[in-house]
Amino acid sequence: MAFGTASPRRAPGRLKSWELDEARLRQLKVNQNRLMDELHHTCQWGTGERWGPRDTETGMRRLSLSDADKEARDWFVDATRALGCDISVDAMGNTFAVRPGREQGPATFAGSHLDTQPSGGRYDGILGILAGVEMLRVLQENRVETAFPVGVVNWTNEEGARFPISMMSSGVWAGDIPIGHAHALQEVGGGTATVKSELERIGYLGLIPTSYEAMPMAAHFELHIEQGPILEKEEQKIGIVKGVQAYRWYTVEVIGQEAHTGTTPFGSRADALLAASRMICASHTAAADHGALASTGVLTLSPGSVNTIPGKVKFSLDIRAPSDNIVDRLEKHLKSDFDAIVSTESTKALPLSVTWRTDSVSPAIHFHKDCIAVVRASANSVLGGEALLREMVSGAGHDSVYASRRCPTSMIFVPSRNGISHNPKEYTSPEDCAIGAEVLLQSVLRYDGLRSNLNS
Amino acid sequence: MAFGTASPRRAPGRLKSWELDEARLRQLKVNQNRLMDELHHTCQWGTGERWGPRDTETGMRRLSLSDADKEARDWFVDATRALGCDISVDAMGNTFAVRPGREQGPATFAGSHLDTQPSGGRYDGILGILAGVEMLRVLQENRVETAFPVGVVNWTNEEGARFPISMMSSGVWAGDIPIGHAHALQEVGGGTATVKSELERIGYLGLIPTSYEAMPMAAHFELHIEQGPILEKEEQKIGIVKGVQAYRWYTVEVIGQEAHTGTTPFGSRADALLAASRMICASHTAAADHGALASTGVLTLSPGSVNTIPGKVKFSLDIRAPSDNIVDRLEKHLKSDFDAIVSTESTKALPLSVTWRTDSVSPAIHFHKDCIAVVRASANSVLGGEALLREMVSGAGHDSVYASRRCPTSMIFVPSRNGISHNPKEYTSPEDCAIGAEVLLQSVLRYDGLRSNLNS
Ligand SMILES: [Zn+2]
Ligand SMILES: [Zn+2]
Repeated sequence: MAFGTASPRRAPGRLKSWELDEARLRQLKVNQNRLMDELHHTCQWGTGERWGPRDTETGMRRLSLSDADKEARDWFVDATRALGCDISVDAMGNTFAVRPGREQGPATFAGSHLDTQPSGGRYDGILGILAGVEMLRVLQENRVETAFPVGVVNWTNEEGARFPISMMSSGVWAGDIPIGHAHALQEVGGGTATVKSELERIGYLGLIPTSYEAMPMAAHFELHIEQGPILEKEEQKIGIVKGVQAYRWYTVEVIGQEAHTGTTPFGSRADALLAASRMICASHTAAADHGALASTGVLTLSPGSVNTIPGKVKFSLDIRAPSDNIVDRLEKHLKSDFDAIVSTESTKALPLSVTWRTDSVSPAIHFHKDCIAVVRASANSVLGGEALLREMVSGAGHDSVYASRRCPTSMIFVPSRNGISHNPKEYTSPEDCAIGAEVLLQSVLRYDGLRSNLNS
Repeated sequence: MAFGTASPRRAPGRLKSWELDEARLRQLKVNQNRLMDELHHTCQWGTGERWGPRDTETGMRRLSLSDADKEARDWFVDATRALGCDISVDAMGNTFAVRPGREQGPATFAGSHLDTQPSGGRYDGILGILAGVEMLRVLQENRVETAFPVGVVNWTNEEGARFPISMMSSGVWAGDIPIGHAHALQEVGGGTATVKSELERIGYLGLIPTSYEAMPMAAHFELHIEQGPILEKEEQKIGIVKGVQAYRWYTVEVIGQEAHTGTTPFGSRADALLAASRMICASHTAAADHGALASTGVLTLSPGSVNTIPGKVKFSLDIRAPSDNIVDRLEKHLKSDFDAIVSTESTKALPLSVTWRTDSVSPAIHFHKDCIAVVRASANSVLGGEALLREMVSGAGHDSVYASRRCPTSMIFVPSRNGISHNPKEYTSPEDCAIGAEVLLQSVLRYDGLRSNLNS
């Protein structure tokens, strides 16, 4: 793999980030082939299920703190150190590669994660780290000097697949998840390994406390695949992520009365599944009216016999919206809808009832206006205008959610083919990966420039 | 237990069934206390779950061909033999107790079953047999001579609970189920006992072939609890059962596309559960419009994760109506409804599809007009008018379905409290049991009289 050299057309001597005008910023080009070659090179560690005939047409199975994860981490440390970075590993294995700037101070980070789902793809998380490393290479080959340090951070166990807390180690860094709790977490599937025992085993139990105080970040930018269909459908290239949807998870239980399907007329039934079906339909209608989402992914019933009307149904309800207010209003609306369904379906002799249990509440996240502005300016620059970019709200959680609680943050989305993610067939074209990486590079440089201007 | 003696008020000497006018028929009274005492006496064999404080407030668990079933059968043989019956046991353990008449010929039977569900009650099947034995007692104490033989038949494994074919041995008798298949059937739950080995073990593997030719019946009347809520709701006492609903069972499979609940807008989904919910609602509406029933008792989905839109849903569909034509029309209607739902819900990129599998087809059964007329006349006589009786169609299968294929048949329904059956709490009041038994008694005598008139 060629590491590239500075283009002879570029200015000799050292480029200073705080002196870069639009024209000069545009000359800092990501090397698409190098980026993709390097990305697929790292997918030798934890290669997953094959879905196509080419070498690169497999998924990934790189569970957090596994041997494969250790090899990918070792590559990350070696590659960034070779590019002039100082490496810090904290007590959760979060790995911060920092390239010094003109002045001391917290670095502006590109961050994401190298772990994957057990049946995941080559882009979720991985693209964000690899684009960060490519950023370091472009800075190095162009001899760019930044005002403050810039860096790349690999967060541990974002997926929550092996150890069942998502965004685990950015959560510890932000002070929202106690480190003792995270360290003691056992792997799913009955194994006895814990986060701490696996960190020790692979040599990534660092000495630095995991904390936004011990390791402050000036800003956090995350390039990530969309994991949804919007950019592809709208034929756009970059999503400027303004925040993350609020969501709430509920378990709804409907109690009716078991009865024989043959001998019980409609007027004498309390059919828990019919009521639940009406609720699922109603949740869809109401969510659409509110500009929100409602989804049911789990439904169980009892007793579960062809000729017995179900007496009990439990189903999950996942509602999401860009703001907490909308989620509030939708929840109220649905509680009233479900009560109405229950009273309409209830016969006098056999009442139905419905109860809600709230399983999870996640407020809306609003990213920082400066970071959003910097991403917008960078996307505009890379794409030559507004047509191919859009503002979006992320539907899924990311390390940027926790990062945003302790430093200015935003995200950059690139298209996911067919909206598919957490699946071996997850795919983003090399062109789109490179566009995203270039927007990430510019965003970090523009933010560094912004800090420099504020300080001068 | 007193066996009763002829009432001194009744005519001395022998009553002849073919000479009984309305007034004399009405004098033949069922002894309610004796009937109920005897019924609860037999519930000592296979007593089930307790639901109330009184001795008789338990359910039943008397699985076919179990030790408890053998004891109930032995009681049946002893009791009917003591009442002057000849006993025949066929190769399926069906037990025919026949009281001779003036002339030779096939008997007019009261029939039902002594086996129960694993978590059943004291009335389903049991009432029909006990009312038959009470009928023999009333005939004996009143010294009634019938024109032709009358009898009581206990059919083996009606419930299909231990050996998984419902109405198994009336089905063999009717020639619809091959005896080899029935004999070889293994008990559910992994045991190695077969129908034949259990018949041998409890001493009920009879020598007579199981066949309507070897053991012809002149008619078959079955007193049974309704197992539904209609009589209780309408405050009526007797259901004159004109036949059994047609029913069909299907498995409907809806295929959509798994996707993330947070990142996939409604317009990009192919939500198999939302489509299935719309289908379940639509099946209810269409069935109501057709005067039919539609029910879903089983529903499974995959992958079954809170934040994943289900890509596949399978559900059972049970449709029933009094005639085959209605079931036909409803099936066509629903196939078109479900196709419409699938095309409305499908987005261009992600089509949904629906497929039907027919699991079971049971045509409508129409009972014999003479038997229906005889039951109507008897119910009229016992209830003193039309107000407390109604014609009905049975929603569930019974041995009378197979009996009706080979001899004139009808059924008599009495109220089920709260419509509950196949449950320990199944209950019919002593008054209602006695009314039903009296209608059964009169029906058998009236039918015997009808045969006698036809032959004279
Ligand atoms: Zn990710
Ligand atoms: Zn029954």
